[in-house]
Amino acid sequence: MSLIVAKFGGTSVASPERIKNVAKRLVRIRQNGNQVVAVVSAMGKTTDELVGLAAALNDNPPSREMDRLLSTGEQVSMTLLAMAIEALGYKSMSFTGRQAGIMTDGTHNKARITKVDNERIEAALAAGVIPVIAGFQGIDANGDITTLGRGGSDTTAVAVAWGINADVCEIYSDVDGVYTTDPRVAPRARKLDEISYDDMLELASAGSGVLQSRAVEFARKWNVVIHSRSAFSEAEGTYIKEETDMEEAVITGIAHDTSEVKVTIRGVPDNTGVAAKVFSALATNAVSVDMIIQNISEDGITDISFTCPGADLPRATDTMERILPEIDAREFVVDEDIAKVSLVGTGMKSSPGVAARAFQTLGENQINILAISTSPIRLSVVVDAAQTTQAVRCLHTAFGLDSDSVFEETQLSAEEIAAKMKKGR
Amino acid sequence: MSLIVAKFGGTSVASPERIKNVAKRLVRIRQNGNQVVAVVSAMGKTTDELVGLAAALNDNPPSREMDRLLSTGEQVSMTLLAMAIEALGYKSMSFTGRQAGIMTDGTHNKARITKVDNERIEAALAAGVIPVIAGFQGIDANGDITTLGRGGSDTTAVAVAWGINADVCEIYSDVDGVYTTDPRVAPRARKLDEISYDDMLELASAGSGVLQSRAVEFARKWNVVIHSRSAFSEAEGTYIKEETDMEEAVITGIAHDTSEVKVTIRGVPDNTGVAAKVFSALATNAVSVDMIIQNISEDGITDISFTCPGADLPRATDTMERILPEIDAREFVVDEDIAKVSLVGTGMKSSPGVAARAFQTLGENQINILAISTSPIRLSVVVDAAQTTQAVRCLHTAFGLDSDSVFEETQLSAEEIAAKMKKGR
Repeated sequence: MSLIVAKFGGTSVASPERIKNVAKRLVRIRQNGNQVVAVVSAMGKTTDELVGLAAALNDNPPSREMDRLLSTGEQVSMTLLAMAIEALGYKSMSFTGRQAGIMTDGTHNKARITKVDNERIEAALAAGVIPVIAGFQGIDANGDITTLGRGGSDTTAVAVAWGINADVCEIYSDVDGVYTTDPRVAPRARKLDEISYDDMLELASAGSGVLQSRAVEFARKWNVVIHSRSAFSEAEGTYIKEETDMEEAVITGIAHDTSEVKVTIRGVPDNTGVAAKVFSALATNAVSVDMIIQNISEDGITDISFTCPGADLPRATDTMERILPEIDAREFVVDEDIAKVSLVGTGMKSSPGVAARAFQTLGENQINILAISTSPIRLSVVVDAAQTTQAVRCLHTAFGLDSDSVFEETQLSAEEIAAKMKKGR
Repeated sequence: MSLIVAKFGGTSVASPERIKNVAKRLVRIRQNGNQVVAVVSAMGKTTDELVGLAAALNDNPPSREMDRLLSTGEQVSMTLLAMAIEALGYKSMSFTGRQAGIMTDGTHNKARITKVDNERIEAALAAGVIPVIAGFQGIDANGDITTLGRGGSDTTAVAVAWGINADVCEIYSDVDGVYTTDPRVAPRARKLDEISYDDMLELASAGSGVLQSRAVEFARKWNVVIHSRSAFSEAEGTYIKEETDMEEAVITGIAHDTSEVKVTIRGVPDNTGVAAKVFSALATNAVSVDMIIQNISEDGITDISFTCPGADLPRATDTMERILPEIDAREFVVDEDIAKVSLVGTGMKSSPGVAARAFQTLGENQINILAISTSPIRLSVVVDAAQTTQAVRCLHTAFGLDSDSVFEETQLSAEEIAAKMKKGR
């Protein structure tokens, strides 16, 4: 008998019909001899709709009220799921973040969990109840509702799994696990049976959207095993855990991210302190700079480029307009059509030559590298957005990640996927 | 300076635009030198939509979960209103039933308030905040959310007004007060400046839909002055209070109710205990019998008629089918096209002849009386539904209630109003 935390995202509970399916799935877990605790997100687009209502009333809604507003989304889905489970003849009770003992700090809209006290959940389990917990929410020391930020339900699930000492935290979604790369881009992508926390974190921060980084960080810290799997099939997904049993591959996966933009400052006098001035001004203006490229200077004049999230671009542009006269630079240009492609793998540390092989492969495929950055277990290159698919595919093949079978879903190019994601922002 | 509780119903907060208007109204109350606490219902049809979602998942949803589900409606509207007030430059905070200290018994779906502890509301007022309280909800001794039943937000408002010792509890709606009768039926209806709790309760129970009976009962018990007024105009509405300053009229108002049905059992042997058998069977089957009419028997055979809410008709029919053979009656017939017209007035007690004048008026207008019932301050007659408008109008004139001015809104007959109400059930 295992004790399982099962988290279902907004897509899985978007309609009464889907909620019924989730209820059936939970009951099956019980029928297989396990104990189970459910964690749910808000139904479908509920959170976006609530944000829209708030925006119609206040350009800058008070964060305390915003959290109270958003938390209602999960309160609806939790009660509906509990009702659906009861309709199948099993006892169920819903619990808000407060009742599930999710204590947080007072940072409204992106609170951090400070304590987990799952006493009521354990009592419910002991009474044969299937507890359903509202994801994404907790309470602060004042007893006010807080929310954990977008995707915070994954974090709730991991925190509850740790709190009740569950054997596994199953995170159900519309993908059936973690792939070596996005199968919609590279149809020969392979589903991983296991992946280490470190590799998963690098993949997530490099643009792979399967799991929230914070949830994985929490899981790593408290050694909670995550099982990322499909809500629509019984197939095993991917286990995220400390040590994997598999022989270590050099490269675990390839992520791509088209949400960043590149800003280049031209004609910068190459004086001491100029870079510091630029990047401290950007930091003050809350621009998250990712990569920095400085060209070799000619005649004491150089170019400085950096990449940052597209969402930060208005603030970056502001900063540039203000700082350009101060540093006596000529101009700045923005390139939104870029993509970051990242090779990730803990095995990289003990295997030299990854960068050389990657650059050679890209070169053979006529893909120009606009910028490079590395960490001990990641190598990222920036390329022209139009070449994303080609870059991902040739690297995937070159590093031996190709599967024998071909992913069957209608294939979208990385560019089409990026367009869809931008639309959905 | 007055301390005012202002309650706004679902229609008043049905859209962001209307919420903004409510916020402006609250700010005006403050600008006029008063302190104000708002109580809100859920936006528009939210509660109905939530009930629909629950029904799709469970034919008999657990009442604890149902209350948690329904309570989210007010949690959304309260936060949005607080945001709208803040956007006008005034401090505001929302409070759930729990945070506002509305303690109830554990009767989910129609809990009764047991205690009001408005400490946090008083602290907020002292800090210059406009508190916004979620109507309709409280918590029981287990810390679980309860709801007060349909229209419970009025009761919340009265309870809060009592708890903070407010000068008045203003209940805003789409009507501008209590009228001598429904102005859509009788355009010469007159708005009352004041009405006593007792008259208001009789009018409400006789079908006048302005205020919830429970809220008025609570107000009478704790001596809270209610001011029923329009959300869409600044005009004074109607004060509901213990003693009115006005010279007492014989009749305060006329209510009509087309939601009841009449059931007649024909050919009943006039034996001892037959009536007891019929009405105890109806009571067991949860049929709320209103009026009972027994004809004078001929040859030991009689007819028994009763009226009950239309919603109880399926259960009444069930009961009849089961009991008919037992009491050896011939048949039963149902008449859904009836209306109850009620004259209400505390002054009736000291003024004999009301019944005589009413019957004479109806007779002169060729309106047949199908049944009669009375209380010390109410006289109700059942008439053919097609004659409702005529009955209300001639009684309104006969008892001197007509106003000099004519109500201007598009006039609907009582029958059209009844049809609309039935559709909306």
